[in-house]
Amino acid sequence: MSYSVAEIQPLDREMGQKVKEYIDTLTKPPGSLGRLEELAIQLAEMTSETFPVVTPPGVIVFAADHGVVEEGVSAFPQEVTVQMVMNFLNRGAAINVFSRQIGAAFEVVDIGVAADIEAAGVVKRKIRYGTANFCKQDALSKEEVEKAIAVGYERAEKMILNGSKCLILGEMGIGNTTPSSAILAVLSGQDVSALVGRGTGIASEKIIHKQEVIKRAIEERKPDRNDPIDILMKVGGLEIAGMTGAMLAAAANRVPILVDGFICTISALLAKEICNSTSDYMIACHRSVEPGHEIALQLLGKKPILDLDLRLGEGSGAAVAFPILQSATLMLKEMATFTSAGVSKE
Amino acid sequence: MSYSVAEIQPLDREMGQKVKEYIDTLTKPPGSLGRLEELAIQLAEMTSETFPVVTPPGVIVFAADHGVVEEGVSAFPQEVTVQMVMNFLNRGAAINVFSRQIGAAFEVVDIGVAADIEAAGVVKRKIRYGTANFCKQDALSKEEVEKAIAVGYERAEKMILNGSKCLILGEMGIGNTTPSSAILAVLSGQDVSALVGRGTGIASEKIIHKQEVIKRAIEERKPDRNDPIDILMKVGGLEIAGMTGAMLAAAANRVPILVDGFICTISALLAKEICNSTSDYMIACHRSVEPGHEIALQLLGKKPILDLDLRLGEGSGAAVAFPILQSATLMLKEMATFTSAGVSKE
Repeated sequence: MSYSVAEIQPLDREMGQKVKEYIDTLTKPPGSLGRLEELAIQLAEMTSETFPVVTPPGVIVFAADHGVVEEGVSAFPQEVTVQMVMNFLNRGAAINVFSRQIGAAFEVVDIGVAADIEAAGVVKRKIRYGTANFCKQDALSKEEVEKAIAVGYERAEKMILNGSKCLILGEMGIGNTTPSSAILAVLSGQDVSALVGRGTGIASEKIIHKQEVIKRAIEERKPDRNDPIDILMKVGGLEIAGMTGAMLAAAANRVPILVDGFICTISALLAKEICNSTSDYMIACHRSVEPGHEIALQLLGKKPILDLDLRLGEGSGAAVAFPILQSATLMLKEMATFTSAGVSKE
Repeated sequence: MSYSVAEIQPLDREMGQKVKEYIDTLTKPPGSLGRLEELAIQLAEMTSETFPVVTPPGVIVFAADHGVVEEGVSAFPQEVTVQMVMNFLNRGAAINVFSRQIGAAFEVVDIGVAADIEAAGVVKRKIRYGTANFCKQDALSKEEVEKAIAVGYERAEKMILNGSKCLILGEMGIGNTTPSSAILAVLSGQDVSALVGRGTGIASEKIIHKQEVIKRAIEERKPDRNDPIDILMKVGGLEIAGMTGAMLAAAANRVPILVDGFICTISALLAKEICNSTSDYMIACHRSVEPGHEIALQLLGKKPILDLDLRLGEGSGAAVAFPILQSATLMLKEMATFTSAGVSKE
């Protein structure tokens, strides 16, 4: 495998403490910028920089298909995955709009779309034409899972080498709330009915069906709760594994990971299972409407920045949250101190 | 008076409906961008624009002092008001940092600081050297209140004429959570103990004292709950009245008002008391730690965008929230439709 988890360093708590003390010299009542102060400290701990920088951000969207859509678990037909890849390449999707807004580098990786994509601009790393239907057989082989993680790792390392100072991982894959919910059921031990939602918008009666599909798959495949690779093989997805790999690379490079919504948080949990300290480099960006997301965030131990009823994926919520991280870094870098501004303290 | 409330138009609900329908043609599951979609619709209703624009924003910070600081209600000495005005002019305060980040026009208005400020750049509209101590006499005369509202109105109109597409109103005034809490007690009818907090950071025993000061002032001054001008006279502040005037101007010009934290929300409530439809043009940007803020937001009937434990004022929370409004407008303007992108619908 072309990734190594031994490289992930612990957070620089000393730098965090130094920045915390510096923040209290800035011209504002102590603590009055709340979570912006916390974020500045966290970014300093991750990067070991006195004045951490998050610009420019990098966005990588991994696209793949899911055999389980045969079971009728999604509101949209499978062809939408490839159509949305074309939309990404033509810069018309939500994540394109928000990436432009925040000045992000952007790429879309075909890691397993169920159709050939020859368009210019797509990063071609197709491992297979979608996963197998995990109601009938394992979604992926062990080699495919490890390849997908390695692809994510490679793309993230490349984007970091090209100068991105934080990473937003996004996904596109019709049906992918189903494998994500299955993975969460395994990792959390919670009942499937508590964590399965409407995905992109299926009707209520279809939710029951989706829950049954997931229950059946877990019973038949028996993923090993203590083996994230096994979970990905049995009920996973290629884009989910790709995002996991990208997160391992970001953490190894001490680059902050901006965690998006439900599916991205599942990748984050798997990355944490592979190497616990990966989550030290993660910032949860928003709370999705998808009911499993809150459970996933609790498992990850993160409180999200935004709560705006988003449920789109693609990395869109993380991109919308990015300016708040930037505000935190600019506060640290650009505010005057009580001494420099000649302002009396309490 | 140089302001007129008769000019405030009702929202353009027809435009809102049109934009709502258009949003459902964009390449994303219907409703999946949650509050961004609601914000885009609200901005369209306010501006009557199919593609509303919020850039560039304008920031006006009103600075004034408060006689009630004699009673020992603030953690910081009164001289900090003028020192912070100098910090604003030297671009070192939090609101300067965030204004730069969002490309905002910025000005600071001396509407009643208790010292002479001769520095270049400050907008000189001093009405008096701080309010009177409202424990002993009315804070302001009726003429002073109306002048302060007119100053706010004038500055907002000027900034709008110069091209600002939305307004952020901020304040600086040592001690100003005390008049704000007094105004809120009058408007809400709630007990003072439920809505008074630490302000910029006073100790617990001082909070009791602050509550007693406010109770005493309300008992002795007897502000008329149904007369916002009377409330401002009895227990108000010049910067609070200035922000109220600026909001009336923004609403009259159909320019969205980005409401900041506790004190700004008090100005918003007063503007709504003066003319009920002013609040149609307001967007609540964040939920402050100050306990009265939640009560004030409920009275205003607004749910804030952010909840980041901020309690700084200056307009800082509204400036931090601004990129989210921009995301909403860019989503509307730049996303492809299902038809234009050739993406299948459910």
